[in-house]
Amino acid sequence: MTGRIESRLAELGITLPQATAPVANYVPSVRTGSQVFVSGQVSNGPDGFIKGKLGADMSIEEGAAAARACGLSLIAQLKAACDGDLDRLVRVVKLVGFVNSTADFTDQPKVINGASDLMVEVFGDAGRHARSAVSAASLPLGVAVEIEAIFEVK
Amino acid sequence: MTGRIESRLAELGITLPQATAPVANYVPSVRTGSQVFVSGQVSNGPDGFIKGKLGADMSIEEGAAAARACGLSLIAQLKAACDGDLDRLVRVVKLVGFVNSTADFTDQPKVINGASDLMVEVFGDAGRHARSAVSAASLPLGVAVEIEAIFEVK
Amino acid sequence: MTGRIESRLAELGITLPQATAPVANYVPSVRTGSQVFVSGQVSNGPDGFIKGKLGADMSIEEGAAAARACGLSLIAQLKAACDGDLDRLVRVVKLVGFVNSTADFTDQPKVINGASDLMVEVFGDAGRHARSAVSAASLPLGVAVEIEAIFEVK
Repeated sequence: MTGRIESRLAELGITLPQATAPVANYVPSVRTGSQVFVSGQVSNGPDGFIKGKLGADMSIEEGAAAARACGLSLIAQLKAACDGDLDRLVRVVKLVGFVNSTADFTDQPKVINGASDLMVEVFGDAGRHARSAVSAASLPLGVAVEIEAIFEVK
Repeated sequence: MTGRIESRLAELGITLPQATAPVANYVPSVRTGSQVFVSGQVSNGPDGFIKGKLGADMSIEEGAAAARACGLSLIAQLKAACDGDLDRLVRVVKLVGFVNSTADFTDQPKVINGASDLMVEVFGDAGRHARSAVSAASLPLGVAVEIEAIFEVK
Repeated sequence: MTGRIESRLAELGITLPQATAPVANYVPSVRTGSQVFVSGQVSNGPDGFIKGKLGADMSIEEGAAAARACGLSLIAQLKAACDGDLDRLVRVVKLVGFVNSTADFTDQPKVINGASDLMVEVFGDAGRHARSAVSAASLPLGVAVEIEAIFEVK
């Protein structure tokens, strides 16, 4: 039987990316009690890493699309942490979004909305979360956005 | 009956700002178990957003005042999360402070002390928290400081 | 009787640094439930603070050594939070690593691996953690790396 959230993903036409494991001494996620901490996911799409610097060579819309890609990877990692059953999500607790930007860029919230909107599209009210959105001087591989998350699960 | 912390706020002459809700798909705070995660609060005072870049156009004292303003917003959001009863706070667990600064600024701790000092003024020993203080390349709306928090409540 | 992790530290030839307390209104760590939140530890070695900016005046190897120094301080703070008994660690839950770098540096993961590798050397599988690695525009005192951590303890 297809889960409620899986049906919602299908309805939205969303295919989750592969939940990839880092080739290093850290892991995609750790569960402690009812909380799942997911490692920072860099913007990565079907055509490879989404690179760029907001305020220089990337529009807010492109940045929001990069943040949405991070959000898809976060959900993919959550699914892996829940043994494939996204219906075990109780609540998206927190996102911290890092935007690769110039020193005078001021629209971090509009960029990270790409991930926040996705969470509510997919999970409804359970997708509403606490959030911080800031700029990083730079990000791994030159990606445009990196987002980490805390989820509450049952 | 006025709560213990409310009395302390009055004694200190502190009026909390309005706990504003973001106009987006995220929320000011999420409670999970006994933890309240409060979204990053940008420096905002009675005269509007406190903007500036440390190391360029703002002194450490002005930066600390901006951090204190973030702290007041954090307490206002905590109060809202506690249905108006700040006496339900068990402990300020953690602050992460992001300072909008130039690439050679090195006094992030002195800036974020503006918020840390406020927590101890208001909550006493329960206000002592773990903390990180770093610089962001830039912040939403050009504000000087953004701080997020985790509180333990009963 | 020497603990299991203390023996492992001796076997690795690792001497933990002094767990220093900040001279401010925040504390090195806060325990809430089974979680210990450790304040951001700046890179600090036997010869003093490890300063530098990746992408400008410091190699990736030097950055990784600075991250390892942060990791040693995190373990020292964890030990203090566990009343000296590191065997009470259940799991390293999460590291967030901030790298002091130029705007075009892209090897944050290789730098923060200095801390991630240390956690697994010392704690084995319990050392594998969720992680974010980003650049900060600058860091306190001009240090090269600052890392904060969440540990699960019993």
